[in-house]
Amino acid sequence: MDTEEFRRYGTDMVNYIADYYDTLRSRLPTPDVQEGYLRKLIPEQAPTEAESYDDVKKDLEDVIMKGVLHWRSPHFHGYIGIAGSFPALIGDMLVGALSSNSFSWVSNPASTELEVCMMDWLGQMLNLPEEFLFSSGGKGGGVIQRTADDSVLVAIIAARSRSIRQHKDMTPGQTLDKLVAYTSEEAHSCIKKAAQLALVTIRNLPTDANFSLRGETLAAAIKEDKSKGLIPFFLGASVGTTSTIAIDNLCELGPICERENMWMHIDGAYAGSAAICPELRYVINGVEYSTSFCLNPHKWLHVNKSCSAMWVKNREFITEAFSVDVEYLKNHKLHGDTTMPDYRNWQIQLSRPFTSLKVWFVLRMFGVKGLQDRIRKDVTLAKEFETLVLGDDRFEIVAEVNLGVVCFKLKGDNGLNRELSKRINDDRRVYLTPSISKGVFFLRFVVTVHNIESSDVTYAWSVIQEQADLLLKSQVNAAS
Amino acid sequence: MDTEEFRRYGTDMVNYIADYYDTLRSRLPTPDVQEGYLRKLIPEQAPTEAESYDDVKKDLEDVIMKGVLHWRSPHFHGYIGIAGSFPALIGDMLVGALSSNSFSWVSNPASTELEVCMMDWLGQMLNLPEEFLFSSGGKGGGVIQRTADDSVLVAIIAARSRSIRQHKDMTPGQTLDKLVAYTSEEAHSCIKKAAQLALVTIRNLPTDANFSLRGETLAAAIKEDKSKGLIPFFLGASVGTTSTIAIDNLCELGPICERENMWMHIDGAYAGSAAICPELRYVINGVEYSTSFCLNPHKWLHVNKSCSAMWVKNREFITEAFSVDVEYLKNHKLHGDTTMPDYRNWQIQLSRPFTSLKVWFVLRMFGVKGLQDRIRKDVTLAKEFETLVLGDDRFEIVAEVNLGVVCFKLKGDNGLNRELSKRINDDRRVYLTPSISKGVFFLRFVVTVHNIESSDVTYAWSVIQEQADLLLKSQVNAAS
Repeated sequence: MDTEEFRRYGTDMVNYIADYYDTLRSRLPTPDVQEGYLRKLIPEQAPTEAESYDDVKKDLEDVIMKGVLHWRSPHFHGYIGIAGSFPALIGDMLVGALSSNSFSWVSNPASTELEVCMMDWLGQMLNLPEEFLFSSGGKGGGVIQRTADDSVLVAIIAARSRSIRQHKDMTPGQTLDKLVAYTSEEAHSCIKKAAQLALVTIRNLPTDANFSLRGETLAAAIKEDKSKGLIPFFLGASVGTTSTIAIDNLCELGPICERENMWMHIDGAYAGSAAICPELRYVINGVEYSTSFCLNPHKWLHVNKSCSAMWVKNREFITEAFSVDVEYLKNHKLHGDTTMPDYRNWQIQLSRPFTSLKVWFVLRMFGVKGLQDRIRKDVTLAKEFETLVLGDDRFEIVAEVNLGVVCFKLKGDNGLNRELSKRINDDRRVYLTPSISKGVFFLRFVVTVHNIESSDVTYAWSVIQEQADLLLKSQVNAAS
Repeated sequence: MDTEEFRRYGTDMVNYIADYYDTLRSRLPTPDVQEGYLRKLIPEQAPTEAESYDDVKKDLEDVIMKGVLHWRSPHFHGYIGIAGSFPALIGDMLVGALSSNSFSWVSNPASTELEVCMMDWLGQMLNLPEEFLFSSGGKGGGVIQRTADDSVLVAIIAARSRSIRQHKDMTPGQTLDKLVAYTSEEAHSCIKKAAQLALVTIRNLPTDANFSLRGETLAAAIKEDKSKGLIPFFLGASVGTTSTIAIDNLCELGPICERENMWMHIDGAYAGSAAICPELRYVINGVEYSTSFCLNPHKWLHVNKSCSAMWVKNREFITEAFSVDVEYLKNHKLHGDTTMPDYRNWQIQLSRPFTSLKVWFVLRMFGVKGLQDRIRKDVTLAKEFETLVLGDDRFEIVAEVNLGVVCFKLKGDNGLNRELSKRINDDRRVYLTPSISKGVFFLRFVVTVHNIESSDVTYAWSVIQEQADLLLKSQVNAAS
């Protein structure tokens, strides 16, 4: 494909995408396919000869879209949403076109430099303590990881390295057998998985009535483990758990971690972004105690995937664990005398895309106010949905609604709610994912898609009520 | 930005990208900026109010392009190149627009299903043994990781888990203290880093005169370590080392790994792709012995970043190490009775983009022949460059030229060649990165950009000769 063809087909794809968004409400969000559907629709082998753009495009609807779950649909209310926006898409096109690898300053100076600035911009928007910013001139700073999973894995590996260095009287394996990490039983699976991959024990601690991890619970666990000769070294705290968007009590947990010389990592993947609104800044109160803090702009700041923003107070903890020095990476004018971070030493992978470029497009084209407005709109819509739920006395709210997610259920047992969840998704007009906390199965209504309106909220509620009617009637019939 | 504006600005960006490619030869590949240049050019804080697309675009040249190292320039010959192509860019636009998260089948059926098919297509193109393909109906299969770094880290963690399970008489830490991984001293840093992050010892073994790791070297190391009571468990073999594109002797190494019950992972990030050409298939001869094998379509198969293809013979080794079961991920019609892989259990991260979609665009729009032609063209151009080097008796070739990279140097010491490397890059007309193997410093000429022509090769050589002339003259002058 030459550049003239790229102009034509690229423009065609831009219009296909615009049409897709314009007509998203006319598609059911949930596909109706069985496992193995796609293999029957395409050849068993790659084509020998080149096919045309039109050949591929012809199959888009019949092969691909047929089996897509439409995460950008205003009728998609599952999981935690993924942010996306047109400014991000346009920035991303340029990221792809430049196709650079920014593992060191010299390998693409603009990328490292813009990342440093964007991480400071974002940090200021969140009103993070100065010490997390490059502009403070201290040891802190930010880095774009790809996902919150990468961020917490980087944190726990760095914390593990620090602990091993602090216990020179033991072999690494002996230390490892004694290290204990903590998180709440409500925390995202990535924290548990990071511990599993780092080969350290993790304890999933119980939470209070608001699904929040409290200081006294952590303190008791630490005391118990220390009495067994174990070494508490890491807390994975949550700002916005996956299930109920609960917020751990950072102001209680932080001082305990400080006292115990433990690394406190905060996973604020979704909810952390709310802190750009002054009235919601409280969600990260206590961040000043953390060793590292992460949120995903690809979750609620309209940067599309993948973009996880991670800040640390002391970048040396990271670089000591993640540096590997080899000659072909040393082609750096100022090696050993650099003020710019060599980001390859802040992460798992050597290679890294120019992600800061799309962050720059988003922050400029929305402006801080624009991003605040979007978050406030989502919170308002969630509150609207909560009001609808509260207006139907067959239903109840499961967790306090503070941000863009509503956890609710039919009054009744788990079986009833599992059946409701199944019926709603089988119906296919709206997509919800259920969850379970403290043994209670419930449904979740998530607001994150950029073009969702109040009418989409009432539409979803009407579908849910309709399915609840049918379910409850069928139960009455079965009982009579 | 509404959809009408997206049509306008998206089209504008398509044309900006086309213009960029059309005029790439008129840009110097290497930027001329000092560390910290960018912070001086942009505000200290994110804008409060939204700015227009035109505002952002106005800054593209003055802020961003000013500091970009142009990896897509036909005068860029550094590192190992990154593939890119217009079909990949167009596919990527749709990936971004759909903005899905394909961690399980149900979270986007089309994504998982297409990935299964694309990994089989690619595997067939490489003539991989059947047992690596899903279509065999066995335990093998492929997955798209993001980078070769992820692939080798996944492999070493899975191997470590397997070893720990095999030594139930010891604690995980005790086993860990005894595990030994091996790789060659020429291997990519990601193998060494993976061992560091997995907290296992790694030995960097010496290579033969062709920079290739040989069986007897590995066998001797294993014997030595076993005599110390250590547990050899993993070999990170290279098909195409970073420095000289050397290929380890898989047919010697493989049987040793089999006999010793060691995991053999092959990192074929760049060179592995050559195997789609029958006459170059030899580069992966011995792949049948491997437990896992990886190559990056984003390096030489014209899929832009990030796309690392990884195959395993037994996917259970991976999923046993990488599964974390939590309720909110169980919303799967066929949970526990599924034929499709839940790819979240094959990798570090929970989240994953719909990368197979751009692979599908590329494989169809190039066709197997088109991709073979590109690889053959790059090999031919590298041979042309080698001929030019051999025609100038001040220079010598450092390593056998089989693929798209030429390692060469001035006859003379490391200091002379360091100076030549510095002068070429300071000159800025072409970009090369040097390397060092067996103590010898040399330059590398890499061919990977899709639109490079024979005239670009002769141009680069003329710049190199010109700088060599100046350098050698200045030395004569200094001596006289």
